[in-house]
Amino acid sequence: MDDTSLSRLRTIFGDRLSVAPAVLAEHGQSESLVLGGQPDAVVFPRTTDEVAALAAWSAEHLVPLIGWGAGTSLEGHALAVAGGVVVDFREMAAVLEVRAEDRLVRVQPGITREALNRELRTTGLMFPVDPGANATLGGMAATRASGTTAVRYGTMRDNVRGMEVVLAGGRVIRTGSGAPKTAAGYDLTALIVGSEGTLGLITELTLRLHGQPEAVMTAVAAFPTVGAAVDCVIATMQMGLTPARIEFLDADTVAACNAYSGLTLHPAPQLLVEFHGHPEGLAEDVRRFRDLAAELGAEGLDWAEKQEDRTRLWAARHAAYRAILASRPGAKAVVTDVCVPISALAQAVEETRADIAASGIPGPILGHVGDGNFHAILMVDPAKPEEAATAKGLARRMAERSLRLGGTITGEHGVGFGKLGLMAAEHGAGWQVMGAVKAALDPLNLMNPGKVVPDQG
Amino acid sequence: MDDTSLSRLRTIFGDRLSVAPAVLAEHGQSESLVLGGQPDAVVFPRTTDEVAALAAWSAEHLVPLIGWGAGTSLEGHALAVAGGVVVDFREMAAVLEVRAEDRLVRVQPGITREALNRELRTTGLMFPVDPGANATLGGMAATRASGTTAVRYGTMRDNVRGMEVVLAGGRVIRTGSGAPKTAAGYDLTALIVGSEGTLGLITELTLRLHGQPEAVMTAVAAFPTVGAAVDCVIATMQMGLTPARIEFLDADTVAACNAYSGLTLHPAPQLLVEFHGHPEGLAEDVRRFRDLAAELGAEGLDWAEKQEDRTRLWAARHAAYRAILASRPGAKAVVTDVCVPISALAQAVEETRADIAASGIPGPILGHVGDGNFHAILMVDPAKPEEAATAKGLARRMAERSLRLGGTITGEHGVGFGKLGLMAAEHGAGWQVMGAVKAALDPLNLMNPGKVVPDQG
Repeated sequence: MDDTSLSRLRTIFGDRLSVAPAVLAEHGQSESLVLGGQPDAVVFPRTTDEVAALAAWSAEHLVPLIGWGAGTSLEGHALAVAGGVVVDFREMAAVLEVRAEDRLVRVQPGITREALNRELRTTGLMFPVDPGANATLGGMAATRASGTTAVRYGTMRDNVRGMEVVLAGGRVIRTGSGAPKTAAGYDLTALIVGSEGTLGLITELTLRLHGQPEAVMTAVAAFPTVGAAVDCVIATMQMGLTPARIEFLDADTVAACNAYSGLTLHPAPQLLVEFHGHPEGLAEDVRRFRDLAAELGAEGLDWAEKQEDRTRLWAARHAAYRAILASRPGAKAVVTDVCVPISALAQAVEETRADIAASGIPGPILGHVGDGNFHAILMVDPAKPEEAATAKGLARRMAERSLRLGGTITGEHGVGFGKLGLMAAEHGAGWQVMGAVKAALDPLNLMNPGKVVPDQG
Repeated sequence: MDDTSLSRLRTIFGDRLSVAPAVLAEHGQSESLVLGGQPDAVVFPRTTDEVAALAAWSAEHLVPLIGWGAGTSLEGHALAVAGGVVVDFREMAAVLEVRAEDRLVRVQPGITREALNRELRTTGLMFPVDPGANATLGGMAATRASGTTAVRYGTMRDNVRGMEVVLAGGRVIRTGSGAPKTAAGYDLTALIVGSEGTLGLITELTLRLHGQPEAVMTAVAAFPTVGAAVDCVIATMQMGLTPARIEFLDADTVAACNAYSGLTLHPAPQLLVEFHGHPEGLAEDVRRFRDLAAELGAEGLDWAEKQEDRTRLWAARHAAYRAILASRPGAKAVVTDVCVPISALAQAVEETRADIAASGIPGPILGHVGDGNFHAILMVDPAKPEEAATAKGLARRMAERSLRLGGTITGEHGVGFGKLGLMAAEHGAGWQVMGAVKAALDPLNLMNPGKVVPDQG
């Protein structure tokens, strides 16, 4: 980016344009081992008009634009692998409108999920999608994120009703409508959700809200084997019970959570399950789940009756990533993410455990198993490059195993450039179709280049 | 289409290629007043390979291809407005695989929803999406269809997990995976669902199944006014009750159903509501709905306890379109379809009723009001062209009213070419983006040209 380009950019953003080394460095790092690329500048827009002007500038000066939310993505989504300008949305973080009757909220992309739910607390409504990090809604939409509640409430695919998007060149479109459904042409909302900033920059979102549950029951159940825990998940879903959450933690994960969050769970494969509903329906859900779990050998099935106990359990679950990291001080994590058909879940988990055990690298497993989605947190010593190589091999084999079992290379973390090399294996000719769509909307390849789609060169 | 082209096509399809006038005429008509276009030929493929060969032939000879399911679309989706070959999928109508543990079924596109559910009956599973017609699954996916159960089970957007699609030129892609969710790149499944055959021909679908409900409760409730009925719907959704169906019938629709299906319902605005679940949860759902309805002045709230009573009620609801048509013998219908935010539903219905009343044309109103979706069945005398013009004006004003209230021009019937003239008003610059996606995937404009997107000339 030359001086002329930069000075033109400064006319749009003034002192909300930064080229300070510390700011560039902050926007050139990632939580994961997927590294590489520092931007030439960072801007902090406040309005859609500014983002549109930025996109017009980008097309004129042929400088890439990379959206930035909370910087918590795990596959290098927001790294400026070809240089360019990072667009940090922290100053576009407002709730614009709560439409309680329609159970919709209009927000700017920079608001985090926790901040949104704080603002909703008194409305009786909530936004349930909860990835591990306190990510921004713009980032979550861009990545098609999910979390512990997707088994009941769906992922970002299901909870984004519409968006305002700035396309390459500066055109602004609005997708979706206030209606709960539509058959009016191509589903541009679904096309943008999960496109990781490669098709445009999200400047506003209309999100579906859900009623805060009238009653909540949470339980932990220890199982004799991983297979028994997974069988309990399958049986629960088969029976038509719809838990709001059903999370698997292997024995290593449980031990790490005990140590980190002061829990006293039995260090065995555990399910954390939660039901939402009205008290009368819940009582029966709970009875049925208890019977299923008992049949499969669950011990110490323990229902958290009090709100504070539930909060403590779920806080520990959300801290599991940090708890696992803390179990090997100094380690860096390779966080894997696959999703398989429920019928293949036990096999996928068992084969992954065996592969990790043979590698010598610690790798606790946990996951949103009601969706067939699980992670291994592979911990490597940064001083030993051979461990990073081993971990990357394990991660690649997990993804390949998932494809072999009919699953996907990523359930919720996305592609970025960390998983680019696996896309052809999953999609075949479909990956070229994604590239054609990208080229149609962004012919100069300025929107987050080097991510998701085949090389546009 | 010249003789050489035709003879080349015959080498692929043999006697499953027809140019018989009766066959062409059958594939050149529509259930609605949207008319125009007869194909040059009709083919009946049996395999994906044949469809791929057809698409390659189409690109070589520059002949359009138009997919055909049950021929029940209402906006001219399947009419050959630019000539070409209609691809009738009636010989690709098999269930390929039921995966009960994963609650998935793999089907060919020509199977109808009723045939699919017959095949599933003994599995404990069902496919809930139920447009009025006994449409094919391929057609339903192409149109992003829904029906009475979308309020609980979602539309085709939510229930197609993946597809095999033959693209222009003959490339075959597979979208989606067996995993319940994925973050692996652009959502091509969602892009194809609702594209009405303009991006490719669907040759296989993997569909989500749902458990047949353990217990079912159905009720009818008569309300003093349309507004009270709609308020009951809003309150029901607000309270977090999740009816499997909540249907509105205005007094004229009720009268028509009474006459046609031998019911004895009070000819007033009625809600037909159904809950699915386990008996314990249902009892409470029913209690809460009863209280809500009573508060809003419902009379004669009547729970159908017996399976045969429920079947009779829902059969009558599904026959409502024919019942309404029968109420004006000889009439042709203009079937309208809009969907608005729930908060605007009462206003949308009331304004529509007033507009219809002022027009002098009979137009009963009914709809899937839990989704904000409703239809007016405008009945015109084919001998009086001025009535058709009046009806079209009413339909256009309904769509414009829906947009003004934050809704969409079509909740479930789709665009075809009947609603092409309203797309720019709904989507603005987004409509051009749809056109760009179309051009990227089908540069020669051979897949169902003249539908959904802006003129590709």
